[in-house]
Amino acid sequence: MATPSPIRQRRHDPESVLSIAVDVFNERGYDGTSMEDLARALGVTKSAIYYHVPGKEQLLARALDRALDGLFELVADERAAAGPAIDRLEWVVRESVRLLVDRLPYVTLLLRVRGNSLTEQAALERRREFDGFVSHLVKEAAAEGSIRPDLDPALVTRLLFGTVNSIAEWYRPARGASPDDLADALVKMAFGGLRG
Amino acid sequence: MATPSPIRQRRHDPESVLSIAVDVFNERGYDGTSMEDLARALGVTKSAIYYHVPGKEQLLARALDRALDGLFELVADERAAAGPAIDRLEWVVRESVRLLVDRLPYVTLLLRVRGNSLTEQAALERRREFDGFVSHLVKEAAAEGSIRPDLDPALVTRLLFGTVNSIAEWYRPARGASPDDLADALVKMAFGGLRG
Repeated sequence: MATPSPIRQRRHDPESVLSIAVDVFNERGYDGTSMEDLARALGVTKSAIYYHVPGKEQLLARALDRALDGLFELVADERAAAGPAIDRLEWVVRESVRLLVDRLPYVTLLLRVRGNSLTEQAALERRREFDGFVSHLVKEAAAEGSIRPDLDPALVTRLLFGTVNSIAEWYRPARGASPDDLADALVKMAFGGLRG
Repeated sequence: MATPSPIRQRRHDPESVLSIAVDVFNERGYDGTSMEDLARALGVTKSAIYYHVPGKEQLLARALDRALDGLFELVADERAAAGPAIDRLEWVVRESVRLLVDRLPYVTLLLRVRGNSLTEQAALERRREFDGFVSHLVKEAAAEGSIRPDLDPALVTRLLFGTVNSIAEWYRPARGASPDDLADALVKMAFGGLRG
């Protein structure tokens, strides 16, 4: 009987590798994470890590796409395309909260990206594209008279998504409000004020 | 004539040392900053750095106090002590935005603290104390009937200060809204919704 190869120490599918890696990135910071850290977290030897993981930056790219693809599904949804702009904006904000909670580690990682590599720059570029989409919705809603005229649309966009993104700082799914209650509270607080 | 000592390469008062150090901490991360990094940023030799700087952690403590002392000045102010709770809350939120903008690098540093040392744990403890004060104000305002009853006060506290703190992520004093316009927009958006 052959000794089990180091590769077999632990079984991982690509999904569990990604999920564990993202937790390590969030805990140690992406730049502070070595392949050795990943091997340890995955429970495999340092020599076996490349069997599971193509490379650190590819894992980062896949993790950031997990968050960004979710945002762009909202952009492409017909509920973001038809009807009064204020209702579409409200829908996008509500779904963004749900997405953030549903993919919390991935969105947390995305929000910490500062552009330190080509992968990070590409992610920032996609994030800016999403921000542009929301910013356009806010402007439409203001033009339709649904946002009080003494509020600057650019500032509203920043504050609105600042509020959404700040949830990643404190929300823990295991305790506290459900994603729906969270989205409800945010929408009531922010849109009550926006509508004036 | 004597050769100038290394200490004299650059003149610094404690204030400029603190300000430069905080910029380095925010750029490289506190844990990623070495005494050598600080010496380079201050324009002094590595051997002269201890003339200017007692130690990295003492600088961190002074920087975090700069942010926290500002928050506790709000707590102690008479405008936070008398009158309807919703008005006091609005005043505290408005002044928190002004403070954040006024001491942006210090507050940014505070918001990144994760409790990795005794100094960081002490800062987190003071932050929690401030959160407790705000949380109490929100509960009072709800009890006085000034916050719509279908909003959970604990969630409101989180979302309100999530919105305030998120400003540190994107606000740059040199361009964009003035601190007063920023505070106005945030208060209109959030409190219009809270009052229901």
